[in-house]
Amino acid sequence: MINFGVDYYPEHWPEERWAIDAQLMLAAGMNVVRLAEFAWVKMEPAEGIFNFDWLDRAIEIFHHQGIAVVLGTPTASPPAWLAQKTPEILRTREDGSRVSFGTRRINCPSHPLYRERSRSITAAMAEHYAANPAVIGWQTDNEFGDRCFCPVCRAGFQIWLKERYGTLSELNERFGTIFWSQTYSAWDQIPLPSTISGAPPNPSLALDFRRFVSDTYVTFQQEQVEILRSTCPNHFITHDMMGFEYDGLDYFDLAKPLDFVSWNNYPFGFWHKWAHTPASPALGHAAMRGLKNKNFWVMEQQAGPTGWQTLSSTPRPGVLRRWAYQSIAHGADGVVFFRWRTARFGAEQYWHGLLEHDGRAGRRYDEIKQMGAELQRIGAEISGAEPRSKVAILQSYEARFAFQVQGNSPEFGYEKYLAQIYTALWKRNVSVDVVSPTVDLSKYGLVIAPALHILTEEVAANLQEYVRAGGWLVVTPRTGVKDVDNVVVNQPLPGLLAELCGVSVDEYDALTPDLSQSIIFEEGELAGQALPVQTWCDILAPQGAEVLACYTQDYYAGKPAITRNQFGLGQAIYLGAFGSDVFHEAVLGWLLKEKGLVCELETPPGVEVCERWQGERVFRFVLNSTDSPQLIRLPSAHRNLLNDTLVSGAIQLAANDVLILTSQP
Amino acid sequence: MINFGVDYYPEHWPEERWAIDAQLMLAAGMNVVRLAEFAWVKMEPAEGIFNFDWLDRAIEIFHHQGIAVVLGTPTASPPAWLAQKTPEILRTREDGSRVSFGTRRINCPSHPLYRERSRSITAAMAEHYAANPAVIGWQTDNEFGDRCFCPVCRAGFQIWLKERYGTLSELNERFGTIFWSQTYSAWDQIPLPSTISGAPPNPSLALDFRRFVSDTYVTFQQEQVEILRSTCPNHFITHDMMGFEYDGLDYFDLAKPLDFVSWNNYPFGFWHKWAHTPASPALGHAAMRGLKNKNFWVMEQQAGPTGWQTLSSTPRPGVLRRWAYQSIAHGADGVVFFRWRTARFGAEQYWHGLLEHDGRAGRRYDEIKQMGAELQRIGAEISGAEPRSKVAILQSYEARFAFQVQGNSPEFGYEKYLAQIYTALWKRNVSVDVVSPTVDLSKYGLVIAPALHILTEEVAANLQEYVRAGGWLVVTPRTGVKDVDNVVVNQPLPGLLAELCGVSVDEYDALTPDLSQSIIFEEGELAGQALPVQTWCDILAPQGAEVLACYTQDYYAGKPAITRNQFGLGQAIYLGAFGSDVFHEAVLGWLLKEKGLVCELETPPGVEVCERWQGERVFRFVLNSTDSPQLIRLPSAHRNLLNDTLVSGAIQLAANDVLILTSQP
Amino acid sequence: MINFGVDYYPEHWPEERWAIDAQLMLAAGMNVVRLAEFAWVKMEPAEGIFNFDWLDRAIEIFHHQGIAVVLGTPTASPPAWLAQKTPEILRTREDGSRVSFGTRRINCPSHPLYRERSRSITAAMAEHYAANPAVIGWQTDNEFGDRCFCPVCRAGFQIWLKERYGTLSELNERFGTIFWSQTYSAWDQIPLPSTISGAPPNPSLALDFRRFVSDTYVTFQQEQVEILRSTCPNHFITHDMMGFEYDGLDYFDLAKPLDFVSWNNYPFGFWHKWAHTPASPALGHAAMRGLKNKNFWVMEQQAGPTGWQTLSSTPRPGVLRRWAYQSIAHGADGVVFFRWRTARFGAEQYWHGLLEHDGRAGRRYDEIKQMGAELQRIGAEISGAEPRSKVAILQSYEARFAFQVQGNSPEFGYEKYLAQIYTALWKRNVSVDVVSPTVDLSKYGLVIAPALHILTEEVAANLQEYVRAGGWLVVTPRTGVKDVDNVVVNQPLPGLLAELCGVSVDEYDALTPDLSQSIIFEEGELAGQALPVQTWCDILAPQGAEVLACYTQDYYAGKPAITRNQFGLGQAIYLGAFGSDVFHEAVLGWLLKEKGLVCELETPPGVEVCERWQGERVFRFVLNSTDSPQLIRLPSAHRNLLNDTLVSGAIQLAANDVLILTSQP
Repeated sequence: MINFGVDYYPEHWPEERWAIDAQLMLAAGMNVVRLAEFAWVKMEPAEGIFNFDWLDRAIEIFHHQGIAVVLGTPTASPPAWLAQKTPEILRTREDGSRVSFGTRRINCPSHPLYRERSRSITAAMAEHYAANPAVIGWQTDNEFGDRCFCPVCRAGFQIWLKERYGTLSELNERFGTIFWSQTYSAWDQIPLPSTISGAPPNPSLALDFRRFVSDTYVTFQQEQVEILRSTCPNHFITHDMMGFEYDGLDYFDLAKPLDFVSWNNYPFGFWHKWAHTPASPALGHAAMRGLKNKNFWVMEQQAGPTGWQTLSSTPRPGVLRRWAYQSIAHGADGVVFFRWRTARFGAEQYWHGLLEHDGRAGRRYDEIKQMGAELQRIGAEISGAEPRSKVAILQSYEARFAFQVQGNSPEFGYEKYLAQIYTALWKRNVSVDVVSPTVDLSKYGLVIAPALHILTEEVAANLQEYVRAGGWLVVTPRTGVKDVDNVVVNQPLPGLLAELCGVSVDEYDALTPDLSQSIIFEEGELAGQALPVQTWCDILAPQGAEVLACYTQDYYAGKPAITRNQFGLGQAIYLGAFGSDVFHEAVLGWLLKEKGLVCELETPPGVEVCERWQGERVFRFVLNSTDSPQLIRLPSAHRNLLNDTLVSGAIQLAANDVLILTSQP
Repeated sequence: MINFGVDYYPEHWPEERWAIDAQLMLAAGMNVVRLAEFAWVKMEPAEGIFNFDWLDRAIEIFHHQGIAVVLGTPTASPPAWLAQKTPEILRTREDGSRVSFGTRRINCPSHPLYRERSRSITAAMAEHYAANPAVIGWQTDNEFGDRCFCPVCRAGFQIWLKERYGTLSELNERFGTIFWSQTYSAWDQIPLPSTISGAPPNPSLALDFRRFVSDTYVTFQQEQVEILRSTCPNHFITHDMMGFEYDGLDYFDLAKPLDFVSWNNYPFGFWHKWAHTPASPALGHAAMRGLKNKNFWVMEQQAGPTGWQTLSSTPRPGVLRRWAYQSIAHGADGVVFFRWRTARFGAEQYWHGLLEHDGRAGRRYDEIKQMGAELQRIGAEISGAEPRSKVAILQSYEARFAFQVQGNSPEFGYEKYLAQIYTALWKRNVSVDVVSPTVDLSKYGLVIAPALHILTEEVAANLQEYVRAGGWLVVTPRTGVKDVDNVVVNQPLPGLLAELCGVSVDEYDALTPDLSQSIIFEEGELAGQALPVQTWCDILAPQGAEVLACYTQDYYAGKPAITRNQFGLGQAIYLGAFGSDVFHEAVLGWLLKEKGLVCELETPPGVEVCERWQGERVFRFVLNSTDSPQLIRLPSAHRNLLNDTLVSGAIQLAANDVLILTSQP
Repeated sequence: MINFGVDYYPEHWPEERWAIDAQLMLAAGMNVVRLAEFAWVKMEPAEGIFNFDWLDRAIEIFHHQGIAVVLGTPTASPPAWLAQKTPEILRTREDGSRVSFGTRRINCPSHPLYRERSRSITAAMAEHYAANPAVIGWQTDNEFGDRCFCPVCRAGFQIWLKERYGTLSELNERFGTIFWSQTYSAWDQIPLPSTISGAPPNPSLALDFRRFVSDTYVTFQQEQVEILRSTCPNHFITHDMMGFEYDGLDYFDLAKPLDFVSWNNYPFGFWHKWAHTPASPALGHAAMRGLKNKNFWVMEQQAGPTGWQTLSSTPRPGVLRRWAYQSIAHGADGVVFFRWRTARFGAEQYWHGLLEHDGRAGRRYDEIKQMGAELQRIGAEISGAEPRSKVAILQSYEARFAFQVQGNSPEFGYEKYLAQIYTALWKRNVSVDVVSPTVDLSKYGLVIAPALHILTEEVAANLQEYVRAGGWLVVTPRTGVKDVDNVVVNQPLPGLLAELCGVSVDEYDALTPDLSQSIIFEEGELAGQALPVQTWCDILAPQGAEVLACYTQDYYAGKPAITRNQFGLGQAIYLGAFGSDVFHEAVLGWLLKEKGLVCELETPPGVEVCERWQGERVFRFVLNSTDSPQLIRLPSAHRNLLNDTLVSGAIQLAANDVLILTSQP
């Protein structure tokens, strides 16, 4: 079965309402709720005094309806009594001032007193619920993140550095602290990197601080994982991450001890860093699935208009269901809507749930109820099926951290660039894995490494091995620029990949928006059209590679822009420039065709096709994200899972509607 | 007589200049000066050592010329000796850092040591001037405002909450502190609400903090009022408020102990929050008059170009006089220009007075001198006459505070919206009272309640009573959303007004600027034209109300947008959407006509008509705010007060010129 | 010889690389390197423990190649051991928080403990290198600047004020502290002026704080100068300033004890305050040369793409060389590129040097190598020749400080305005000195005083003397507004220049961008065309001056806008408005022609001509800053110095190319 449910807060509503809500959930085909992840003070109203009675009663109601329970550890919201007793656990801003109690994520993640209380509440919950038959798993905390600049974190960072570098002279040497006279003669001289002290800090220090913060959350989570594993060995453990956009933690590390990854999927809101399209949540799914290369849950699936102080427009009819099916199409085995009922009080009054403030079940509930009924029919069939990709994009949190420190070009954004590449593939209905550069790549026909800025010898070897064995690798500007210490390599770019690519970068030009450039392919299907590029141009000097395209303007007109190098049984394509959507769609489309990776199902713009495989059986999700009906031409007969009919030829898909086709009727 | 004068700072100029200035004022027809409101250190050069000699001499010069004196208590600028002795009286910013001495409004409004010195200087002034025949009244402080986040304020807020809620469990329950685990187990755990700690604070706490700050200034003023009342029982007491735009304090409360309201009217400058038109000061006058529903003073009337670090352009010839007559037209019984002479030193060197820096009397002085001469002829006739309105707009500082906490839509601004509605009426020369929702509304034919977000049962009953007795009430989106605790009501919107309106809000859509919507009336004079609406659309479900207009686009095309409900002898019109100026002008224009509230004098765009009534006699001020002459058609003969002629038919009004007509020749 | 070289950091590279770099420099025709200005911790690894061995070895390598050495005192980057031992030396921000160790310029410039260590390292270096034959001079610190708000600075400011004003009553009187009740009764009450405390501080205090900060750096430098002068009497002393754009210090004062001025010339980057054109570095040169009215060095000449976190585009072929020749053309006797090799680590990884990160000598090196070869041929001839100007622009750091405090109009910028005037002259190939208003002006035919806001009697007398003797002076709006205390003069504007100009300002109008205005000349070659003006209009009342042009619009249409006053043998032209480029080019072009100061060599747009004179011999640098070849018409035969040929008539100059012509073949 697909896990299908909501995030519910019994502590927000009168106890007499709980059973009504459970019945409404059941009527909507739901089988799971997440509970308790912000209820610390309710479970531990005073230090060491625990009270789970209310939660026991709520769980009993759900259990009675056959609805399973996922519990969240409540450590993202330490209680007032803890902040009052030990205000030093409150997080410190970069300017040295401390955050106030009165919102969430107010704590320093390092502080031993906060950690001690966190372990205590985790252990108390685990012991209390280990044997509860309704409980199936745990979510650690909620949306880990936020940097702290307190003295405890500074001291922790110094210890972390000592463990990493062993000696100060090693650190000084590798950081290049001699620059601007920053050589340290004692570990406790090392500051936290400051962006508000005028000129910038040492980039190696700044990168390591981001690594340290990430490791801090990983070790904090590890303390909870160990308690939960030992006390509740039969429960799963997950964490609700913030998708591809969030770049504060190394999610590969955070995912490691989890049974599976969860994430919170809000396709539409004000906070997005770049223009949002239906490809954006698709990338979120691919990146979150890629953390462990396995199916995942959406622990918070958007349920209505969202926003803290202000709202965006309401999702149009069909959109919530389409978004939720998109999650499943990309490998979600659980879809949990946030939240059940819109809160009447507190900071998220306008982050709407499925029900209205007054408890009414309206348009949004009805739409999800329809989906619940559908899943009761088809869920068992789909469950366990997995996406299969022949194409991979490599993503690296180390590169993201490095670009946070030095953006390279004001026009460049790593996430935006990766999304641009992903979208070019998504438009062709190509399934893509977004994975770590350290994984085994042998199953992929095409691997793209966008701006893989920090490059280790281990990764370089992995890429060489992949290409040598027949893979096609696409390398881009700003790849291989830095070593693991965020220091520029002492060799021509792309550094450790220069030999693999058979090319070196002679010069680069960070194009300001007033400058234009384009490239032209020398031969093949792309020959003859000037493709606009922008933001960054590497001027290439082939060292054995074949030149595919050259620049057309400025002093480097005629100089190589794209090269291809045969290496072993495969080839490495160096794209020398960032570019327009047109550029990426053309070049990647051509490469897919050359490599024989084209999806057999072509769809009109805005209609996505996404597959999950069960052995030899494929489920094709066709999602119409446009506001009008679209015609889909099927190359062969399929069974339409949702209405259990056979379809073939041209079929019409209503606006925002969803088709699930399967090859084996 | 109309009180007509200037704000004067004898302490800024050589004593030998004082008599020259007084004579120039007299020559300009002036009869009042405000003095001393920033002169604390001059009156109390060291703690407890008072020196009023200089001020006595200045007052004597004015008294000699027959110019009356209003004194300001100087508590907006505590002296350096006080800040040095007790730096803890300095205001604290939200990040915990303290403001520096060296500007104005540097003090915490709560601090007992500041309050003690404020009472002391107030008492010393009051005793010294109680019997001075020149002194006619007092201004408390100057432009109260500014929040403080110091420990004294935090402790005061905790006490304020304790008095309001009695028990912590009551507060926890009503605030919904269980959200994000914020339940308090001790009063001193309660923080000040922080907007710089990441996620937002509890909206109930945030609203109450604004109430507390407002109450703090009210009680601070009350300490001065009590001293002044008991010591100077024959003097009036007022305060110079900052008009409609300022939203930091509940001006209804602040106005209560005053004899009349004053305000500082700067129609033109850089700091305005939305586009300024001639309707903007008109709204300022209406809102300030509405605080006590009686005539008022303009204590600072713009006298030239203004600005602190930078200036805006200079008021064109005629504009200063027109602005000043507009004040009188709307009910000002006093017009005091800020300031007499442009300061040569200090932070307001570029906030120009009537005279230039070098003391020259130039174009601006001459213009105001002309007005002074006019007022000497006509002032007695006008004085005491009062505006009379059949239309009211309800404004609520509680709603404004709530929208500060949660803006609902980034496109929405309460003040901008209210100004939009006011302007639609102003363009039709309709006199409007801007009043509290708690006042007796029985005298109004039409009452508009724009976005009355926080709604108490008392107000709901007042509105029902009004409609039941025959009134017409216009209700808008975002009305009745919250209870007094800033918690969303547990019933369909518009909550406590749902029955009165005979309608409920099924769904709402916070339109982003890329989305368009319009409505169409089903019948009547507006039928047939699609009126553009924006920012917010309520989709209505009539519960007895008649549908007047429906949406035309998107998934709720055809759904009700405007309804009318007969209730008792009156009716409640629910406008389901915010809209363009065109929308409001059409709908309000239609309602005015239906209700028979149309002004008989129609004027070209940019020409305002405003009335003051003395018994059965009316004074019609006609103000041409355009840069060209305009033709006015009089429906009947009038006396032209300014030149004492009879006029009728079409008369021409020069650019920026003013007509004062009276019905009884 | 022209000093030609690079900024080099031996401490950043393996010792075995040093000789390779020295040979590459020699091959590029270089004869000077700057060393050590950020190497404090390398020279003094622990307090009082000095180690110059490494630097001795590096210097020896350069000396061996005949490359001279300039040493920087390293006080812009105090070591970690000093920040750890005495964290109170770290600079304090305006909000009271302290900057972190870990970047440069982290220190308070006043702190006695920092100053003591700075004197110590300076003395140690001076003693060690006094007799080193390779060392020719010293650079003090690096790019002085940055305000500190610590208690030591506050106390120092109070002492500085006491020395300046003698008594508190004098200060109170001159500052007008009575405004907003700020009168001080003790010196230690005086705060640092705050811009984050709500309303603005006293402008006199704010100006004096800027003077104090400037004096602090001047006295700090003086401590180094005295040590260096006494220990190394044969070495020159300079400082690398930040050009015309930097406005934090009074560079006239800072330049006084130096042998010559140096500055850091980065024509292209993100940080510029206004649109950059080839005239921008020209103005930088003129302003820096004007500090001492003598030739100068460029101590850091841009060597490639620059930026900290992000880069701008790469300088096109020929541009680096053209920029460097422009420096020489304007009087640079030294051109030192920053930096030799692009750093692999530290905060300036993307501030590119001549060599790439990997040490490759590519396009940029080759271009500068060509220039080095040219200079080896022609350097001796040019060296010592000096620019000669008949036109001067007066610049005043006091005016700049005053405009920082009060910008007058949001559209106005002093630096932008001065650049606009400079550019209008530059386009006509007119040599301009940018000098202090206190210098002897008798050699100039035309002097322009743009917005000389703060005017002392001394300067007013200097300008009168200049005009009386036959000079032409151009005076503009916002001149003579303030006295030395930043207090508005007690007389009509232009205050102390009113008599000289024969005019007074009746009114002014700070035009907002939505308002337009233009002027029209009454007769002469400019008559008949309306010239657009903007931002500020003075409405003039002639007091003896002749009216040249009048306004055309608004209520002051027909009122005088430009006047000319005969005064002694000269004349004072008052330009009543700021304006468009067109306006300034027209008016200044006409004045140049009238005064007979037109350059004989006219060039196409984008081609600059600049002269250096050696007795009667002139070197004409012709610089093509366009991307296409340009035709230059020579009025007479010249020798082309770069290829030693005779040229005459029309000659073509390639894109970005440079001609050096000399009149004496």
